[in-house]
Amino acid sequence: MEINVQKCCEILREIDDIVILTHRNPDGDTLGSAFALHYILKQLGKRSRVVCHDVFPKQFSYLLLEYEPEDFEPKAIVAVDVADEKLLGSNLDEYCGKVDLCIDHHGSNKHYAKNWLVRDSAAACCEIIEDICYGFEEAELTKIIADCIYTGVSTDTGCFRYSNTTGHSHAVAGRMFKAGCDFVMINRLNFEVKSFSRIAIEREVLNGMELYFKNRCAIICMTKEMIERTGVLESELEGVPAMTREIEGVEIGITLRARDNGYKISIRTGEEIDASEICGKLGGGGHRCAAGCFVEGDLETAKKTVLKIVAETLGEDFE
Amino acid sequence: MEINVQKCCEILREIDDIVILTHRNPDGDTLGSAFALHYILKQLGKRSRVVCHDVFPKQFSYLLLEYEPEDFEPKAIVAVDVADEKLLGSNLDEYCGKVDLCIDHHGSNKHYAKNWLVRDSAAACCEIIEDICYGFEEAELTKIIADCIYTGVSTDTGCFRYSNTTGHSHAVAGRMFKAGCDFVMINRLNFEVKSFSRIAIEREVLNGMELYFKNRCAIICMTKEMIERTGVLESELEGVPAMTREIEGVEIGITLRARDNGYKISIRTGEEIDASEICGKLGGGGHRCAAGCFVEGDLETAKKTVLKIVAETLGEDFE
Repeated sequence: MEINVQKCCEILREIDDIVILTHRNPDGDTLGSAFALHYILKQLGKRSRVVCHDVFPKQFSYLLLEYEPEDFEPKAIVAVDVADEKLLGSNLDEYCGKVDLCIDHHGSNKHYAKNWLVRDSAAACCEIIEDICYGFEEAELTKIIADCIYTGVSTDTGCFRYSNTTGHSHAVAGRMFKAGCDFVMINRLNFEVKSFSRIAIEREVLNGMELYFKNRCAIICMTKEMIERTGVLESELEGVPAMTREIEGVEIGITLRARDNGYKISIRTGEEIDASEICGKLGGGGHRCAAGCFVEGDLETAKKTVLKIVAETLGEDFE
Repeated sequence: MEINVQKCCEILREIDDIVILTHRNPDGDTLGSAFALHYILKQLGKRSRVVCHDVFPKQFSYLLLEYEPEDFEPKAIVAVDVADEKLLGSNLDEYCGKVDLCIDHHGSNKHYAKNWLVRDSAAACCEIIEDICYGFEEAELTKIIADCIYTGVSTDTGCFRYSNTTGHSHAVAGRMFKAGCDFVMINRLNFEVKSFSRIAIEREVLNGMELYFKNRCAIICMTKEMIERTGVLESELEGVPAMTREIEGVEIGITLRARDNGYKISIRTGEEIDASEICGKLGGGGHRCAAGCFVEGDLETAKKTVLKIVAETLGEDFE
């Protein structure tokens, strides 16, 4: 059943011994939502724990500073920022079909839970969690909750740069400032700090960058050797494809990432060109400015395949 | 005389044929403030033009979209975001001692104008311009004014990341969203787009990066040859020193930039170490996390000089 914030608070008031589920490959919004909800429930005298398919990434450890997971037999299951049960990950299979309440901001939410509070106008699920906090008179928006909520809003909006950012996102951030959130530390950890291996792969990627079609297209490649040599982890590669779009005049940025039998292709574009259309022609898809697909074969074959489609899109000659 | 927003509006209402001065090496805040004020004055039926020591940087051309400078004999001089007359630049010498009104957010403002409205709690001068706009009943906060004000707030706060950001900054941004500001374009131009030569110098800088003291210190160098080879402009080098601080575990980042008879040194640190103290020992100064100084001699000499001081600060051995 679809519910509003008030009904959501009523449901939360009725339950106890709650497992809070996040999606796999957890990001700042699913973790921020989960831990904020945990800290709110704690103030209501309720036991809860946050459960994830993966280990919590190190950079988010500040969200857990006041977290004391308790041992209990779960009586209720809540999922946050999880649009589809499939996104829970295989380690959380046991919860499929058992979610009592889902709080989410994806318009694509599959309505798999008994009750769902979905607001697709929210840039981050944490924006909804803020309202839930205000729904309980006895809950205070403490500093740690402010850190959680700010984390979700800031990371899901790319620090207020992505087009999903709204005036409401800024209003939420302003209220988290009042509650004392440590935005400098949070943004430094999420947007500035890079590992040595990430710096190393950036260097290799920049050294090998190629430009095509009067510099309207940039192409970078991450081979298996480069990834092994630099020791970079999958989780550290986020944002690498975006590097192609940062170059003045580049309309289409292509990133090739070696897989077992071919290349994973990420396309980044400005507002003018539809990346999902390009990837669609190669059996993939995505959003207007960020899309992906897979091409079989060796590096040269993969490059030629994608460059041919890009040439058509740009109205340029190829070969 | 020190004045408040109300008095400032009264003064602006009384004057006409106004020259609006920005500081030299203009940034988003001084230009955003100047053009926002111009568009406000236009609505009041007043003539004004924006004057700067330098040409307006290309990336800010969207601020000028509705700008039609008019030819007139100036009857009043207003300076925005200019803490000191010296910062006007030599081309604007004629205005020294003649500024009628100064609107600024620097605590260090020299009170060189006849009247000054200085609010040092504001992250950006544009935050004050917003209040001035509201001070005129007949002035509407149009989209172009919102673009100007958002530009100042966003650029002076590093897109809401620097420690000067306040809840009020977010509140201002939220109101600019309501007025339709094009924040995606503005942030893309100011924070994402890099020139080919900038990418080239980043690549060279990363390739030559050295680490010292168990990776607690990173050092990068821009030689004259590198700058010539890449063709990078002075204005494109902003943010290069910050690259050193983005590396996991690095507490002190050092950037050396070749000058005629030595090296300009930029030091970046986390909150724990005082960069201005390090630079102070070499005759320079600055802020806690960002400071600079000058060291005479060749590259090896300059490196050794600064590394010796850094070693002391970190309690590490050097030579």
